[in-house]
Amino acid sequence: MNWTLAARAERMNPSVIREILKVTERPGIISFAGGLPSPKTFPIAEVDAAVHKILTQDGQAALQYAASEGYTPLREAVAKMLPWPVSPDQVLITTGSQQGLDLIAKILIDKDSPIWVESPTYLGAVQAFTPMEPRVMSVACDDDGLNVDALEAQLKKTPADQMPRFLYLLPNFQNPTGRTMPEARRAQLISVAKAHGLCLVEDNPYGDLWFDQEPPDTLTSRYPEGTIYLGSFSKILAPGLRLGFMVLPPALYPKMLQAKQAADLHTPSLNQRVLHELLASSFIPKHKPSIRALYKSQLDAMLVALQKEMPTGVHWNKPIGGMFLWLTLPKHIDSQALLLKVVEQGVAFVPGAAFYANESEAEHNKLRLSFVTASVEQINRGIAVLANAIRAEC
Amino acid sequence: MNWTLAARAERMNPSVIREILKVTERPGIISFAGGLPSPKTFPIAEVDAAVHKILTQDGQAALQYAASEGYTPLREAVAKMLPWPVSPDQVLITTGSQQGLDLIAKILIDKDSPIWVESPTYLGAVQAFTPMEPRVMSVACDDDGLNVDALEAQLKKTPADQMPRFLYLLPNFQNPTGRTMPEARRAQLISVAKAHGLCLVEDNPYGDLWFDQEPPDTLTSRYPEGTIYLGSFSKILAPGLRLGFMVLPPALYPKMLQAKQAADLHTPSLNQRVLHELLASSFIPKHKPSIRALYKSQLDAMLVALQKEMPTGVHWNKPIGGMFLWLTLPKHIDSQALLLKVVEQGVAFVPGAAFYANESEAEHNKLRLSFVTASVEQINRGIAVLANAIRAEC
Repeated sequence: MNWTLAARAERMNPSVIREILKVTERPGIISFAGGLPSPKTFPIAEVDAAVHKILTQDGQAALQYAASEGYTPLREAVAKMLPWPVSPDQVLITTGSQQGLDLIAKILIDKDSPIWVESPTYLGAVQAFTPMEPRVMSVACDDDGLNVDALEAQLKKTPADQMPRFLYLLPNFQNPTGRTMPEARRAQLISVAKAHGLCLVEDNPYGDLWFDQEPPDTLTSRYPEGTIYLGSFSKILAPGLRLGFMVLPPALYPKMLQAKQAADLHTPSLNQRVLHELLASSFIPKHKPSIRALYKSQLDAMLVALQKEMPTGVHWNKPIGGMFLWLTLPKHIDSQALLLKVVEQGVAFVPGAAFYANESEAEHNKLRLSFVTASVEQINRGIAVLANAIRAEC
Repeated sequence: MNWTLAARAERMNPSVIREILKVTERPGIISFAGGLPSPKTFPIAEVDAAVHKILTQDGQAALQYAASEGYTPLREAVAKMLPWPVSPDQVLITTGSQQGLDLIAKILIDKDSPIWVESPTYLGAVQAFTPMEPRVMSVACDDDGLNVDALEAQLKKTPADQMPRFLYLLPNFQNPTGRTMPEARRAQLISVAKAHGLCLVEDNPYGDLWFDQEPPDTLTSRYPEGTIYLGSFSKILAPGLRLGFMVLPPALYPKMLQAKQAADLHTPSLNQRVLHELLASSFIPKHKPSIRALYKSQLDAMLVALQKEMPTGVHWNKPIGGMFLWLTLPKHIDSQALLLKVVEQGVAFVPGAAFYANESEAEHNKLRLSFVTASVEQINRGIAVLANAIRAEC
């Protein structure tokens, strides 16, 4: 047949993570791999009741075509929920926050446009950007997230025509590292971004999952004209409903809306109304603390297990929220080879190398552990298996 | 601020139809404009019961992340539902069939790739293709749809490097014209397509809405290796659930799947399971005849009203299914100017000029009438208003 693929299709490759997850999806496996929220947190009865109420009261509208911007009362509720001044006119409801990344790519990336990301970064974002064929460059990071001194140096040596279309980053409980950018670092970043006219994309899917105290204010609240904010309800309601949103500088809204309309006309009406119902009834605000408490107890269990089991030379961080921690093996141990061994013993994780925008930057002795999917008992067993396998390599 | 838009964003413009629909959305208007299925056909109680059953029996899975391909039992049910041999492995569940158009654009269109469409055609498809910057060319059509002799002539004079990536068409009850391609024309089209290695995209959102007899076999069933098929559940279940699917030649599946994954990870799990439940319980097959009967009675009412009210020199077709008919005014009457007048009197339609890929081809004396949204009583009043306004121009 004469199908001719677009040049961009050649650049698109299966997600390494999704491929790994397939291997690790066999029943009975203890998975520290997926980024799956704990299904215990899904408010099944509340979703059922909300659907019933909506269908009973306004079923025809909930099942009809709707506005591409999103359901107006939901956009208002989202604007009100955010702790900085946002107009509902800036809110675009998306089919999961992944769709926001796809729309950003369409509207802001030309072939060979430079895009800057953290190192490591969320692989799904790179996959969403890739079809528009950017040149993705990393900015150096440390345990506090993006290294702003390194960013400033990089900006200073970048010619005007090579300035990135945007810098993409996750300041809170980052995927994959679990690290959080402290207040001083955020203030410094915004100052540098403003000085250089650098635009930001702030992805905040985990922001509500803080444990002891809220993370510092968002970047968007400090620099609204220069930042696109991506929010998600996958972690505090349910990912299977595919509900996210963008907060856009007004100048970008019309084109982003056209891209949304062309992409899927609108996000499912019923799902949007369910979310609105659960926000309006204050269910979601009341639900968040229970998710935080569950995830904190799971992280604590994992930290205790790591402390007890891991041999000398293995290091890890202590995230203050989110779903992931980041483990560093002795330099000579390759986490991908380690995965193949521990999968045989019923344990899975994602090798760190999967999260680097460019293969040459990948650190092969890192790995990501999710502490939210497995139970405490599974965490104890799984970490022991993992520690034994590492010990065998030391 | 230093936001730089991608070049493609400049080409993206608001949907003329959506803009018109905004004008016509005021309460009390008799709308022949929108492509909205009659909300009377929405099975509200059945959706409610299906949601309740799914959440009760398998709520955690229905609210969790899921495979990008779609829910496996749903893919199997869709393959089984289609009247030609389709493997579930060829079925990709999409967030409405609009998303299928977006994925096709990403995987098959390079900048300046030629794409051929019917004249007139579904504007939403052109909008989905536009971000990938194709050159969209029309093929001549007549009352039976695509003129295959004209297509063959066009193919013969096209150099190999200018062959279209695909020809996009809606053979059944086309949007906007309501016309259907007869059997002989389909056979001729497939013969020409095979001879020239021409690839097809067959969009069939209305195929189930036939009135007295089923339309001829799909193009895809005759030429599966060279055709992408797009299906929708918006017209036989509910558009607000955003559920569609693609049937793909196996060679195209992996890249299309990667584009789907990057676009929104997957179509909402709960919505997919609701659809599966309503297919598995045979509700949807039993529901279709009632939609057909309703729409046929509404078309009949509109045909009677047109016959009674319209002045000499106005012509229209008699669709054998679907949601739309196509009306031709005397040459000197511009349907856009007419719209502005009748909107004042509480009646709306979409001017035909909105449906042409290139402005130079637009026929300004055509208009699209939907017969499914307004009631029979509204149809009678609305057609009388429209006829009076036309008479005033004659």
